[in-house]
Amino acid sequence: MASRRPTLVVTMGDPAGIGPEIVARAVASPALRKVARLAVVGSADVMARAAKRVRPSPRFRVISPSGVDLTRDAPGIALVDTGGEGWDAIRPGIGTAASGRMAAQAIEAAARLTMAGQADGIVTAPISKTALQAAGYPYPGHTEFLGALARVPETRMLFVGRELRILLATVHLPLKSVSDALTVDSLLRTIQFGAAALRNFRWGERRVVAVLGLNPHAGEGGLFGDEEGRVILPAIERARAEGIHAEGPYPADTFFAQHGGRRDLGVIVAMYHDQGLIPAKSEGIGAAANVTLGLPFVRSSVDHGTAFDRAWKGGASAPNPAGLVTAIRAGANLALRGVRPLRWVWP
Amino acid sequence: MASRRPTLVVTMGDPAGIGPEIVARAVASPALRKVARLAVVGSADVMARAAKRVRPSPRFRVISPSGVDLTRDAPGIALVDTGGEGWDAIRPGIGTAASGRMAAQAIEAAARLTMAGQADGIVTAPISKTALQAAGYPYPGHTEFLGALARVPETRMLFVGRELRILLATVHLPLKSVSDALTVDSLLRTIQFGAAALRNFRWGERRVVAVLGLNPHAGEGGLFGDEEGRVILPAIERARAEGIHAEGPYPADTFFAQHGGRRDLGVIVAMYHDQGLIPAKSEGIGAAANVTLGLPFVRSSVDHGTAFDRAWKGGASAPNPAGLVTAIRAGANLALRGVRPLRWVWP
Repeated sequence: MASRRPTLVVTMGDPAGIGPEIVARAVASPALRKVARLAVVGSADVMARAAKRVRPSPRFRVISPSGVDLTRDAPGIALVDTGGEGWDAIRPGIGTAASGRMAAQAIEAAARLTMAGQADGIVTAPISKTALQAAGYPYPGHTEFLGALARVPETRMLFVGRELRILLATVHLPLKSVSDALTVDSLLRTIQFGAAALRNFRWGERRVVAVLGLNPHAGEGGLFGDEEGRVILPAIERARAEGIHAEGPYPADTFFAQHGGRRDLGVIVAMYHDQGLIPAKSEGIGAAANVTLGLPFVRSSVDHGTAFDRAWKGGASAPNPAGLVTAIRAGANLALRGVRPLRWVWP
Repeated sequence: MASRRPTLVVTMGDPAGIGPEIVARAVASPALRKVARLAVVGSADVMARAAKRVRPSPRFRVISPSGVDLTRDAPGIALVDTGGEGWDAIRPGIGTAASGRMAAQAIEAAARLTMAGQADGIVTAPISKTALQAAGYPYPGHTEFLGALARVPETRMLFVGRELRILLATVHLPLKSVSDALTVDSLLRTIQFGAAALRNFRWGERRVVAVLGLNPHAGEGGLFGDEEGRVILPAIERARAEGIHAEGPYPADTFFAQHGGRRDLGVIVAMYHDQGLIPAKSEGIGAAANVTLGLPFVRSSVDHGTAFDRAWKGGASAPNPAGLVTAIRAGANLALRGVRPLRWVWP
């Protein structure tokens, strides 16, 4: 298993952001190309400009999206050209409908290639949700977009850091909508996704799926909210009845200091975005990879945004590819560990 | 200033929890008594039992709440006996109306002594909110209880860790009620409290009061909630118009990795309990002290609960006083640094 070298397609992200530059820097690394066979997907025009701005500069082999074979080695770094409006249509540092459209075309091509068996997984550079929606794509982010392209009923976001694996029960919602979005059924499903990830990626099927509370002190016995008793505990009990080692609800503020180092800890289920992302990012920006559960292929992503304010400035201010490198390493690791086919939670 | 040794009264906390034991262990430390003149307030009956369970055992000098002088040194450690039902009325490890009542009596006596000029501040051991309310005290916690005893219109909770000072805009509310509780006026008041703390404790009046967003990605331009534009930004702008160096709203998940080390950072304003407490506790349980802003005296507290499951077991399982030691050191430091009288934000 360990001798296999997986193929990953890397999307360029929003071309007005730092995506093309960090992709160019990351794929130029021979060490990273030993971990996985990497192919970039995006506008060849934009990526050629990004390649000129980084040292060492990657040597691309531009190919068309149809009729390619990415699963074999060939000279240079494969760059699948999704065409589109190109460099002249974008405003560096400013997300627009044009930049959102070009980002979306790269994602669509990457999903097509992967589902056609050309790659084991997708690694995505940052996009702007505002630009994506300005271009008419009604998705709050990559995860939902890829879910629609792969026609899967549900996905979940998992953050894989050095120490912690944190799974989100809800993601891109206003905070005040989180309570209504949490139901016993949806939370049970999230716990099942966590257990399926432990199995699919051979992290230890018998490890614990630890579920956080929603309210301060996990509701303090009902004094500060009733979701723990009404929703979270019933979901945990149903999961336990299915044989999943679910525990909780744990007060979120003390969980990480008290239980973060437990050796039997498998996945932590956070109720909402910042409850999971604040601890996931406590190891530093770029230390955690965003992994999508529920897709038929491996997908990992940077854990940061487009950083429009730092894009295309060149020279000393060239953006740091650490987050993308983390995502590529995580994607390669999951592609190697993953049981084929990935089995998720629907019948 | 640094040569002065402040007097702090330390409450015993809920007598059924770990409070009496950690108080006995902490005040037995000669090193800690060099930092501040410490007096314990609580049931002498309960504290005598706690003293027997810890090594070294503190030598108490039991005195009555009236007619004492805590501000001068005397042999032994002053123990202000609040009487009450005593040891036989409590059930070790189980919070009850009786344990809540005894905890409340210690808090009331500590506030009276401090407001009478007998001490510079109060350090509180953990109480059970459930037990407190069972005893008929309608407060969600110490902070609100002390605010009522001191007859101040408003208080705020500030967590002081090794690196970060985190101020909460809302505290003990169900998560779904946070949005409604955040108003421009209340948030402006919180920012003003942060600026007053920088001034009162000489942390640097010109430092930044950094305000976090409420929603994922601080609302992502309105896609995931409108509170950032409708409430948070207007409050920041009003604070800036008053000369406060307020900034934000910052996305909460990336703030700590991106800005946590900034040298001009004064206080971070979190919108709700877990948003502030997860990063405050990321340095470990016991590393941050809970400090109340708005009282006429210094008040600090442990950042953990009663740990009923570990109380009164004795021997090797004697509870760790690290959090209380942190709180006593923080209280002593604030009592020394504090400008007298503490000036808060009401006219």
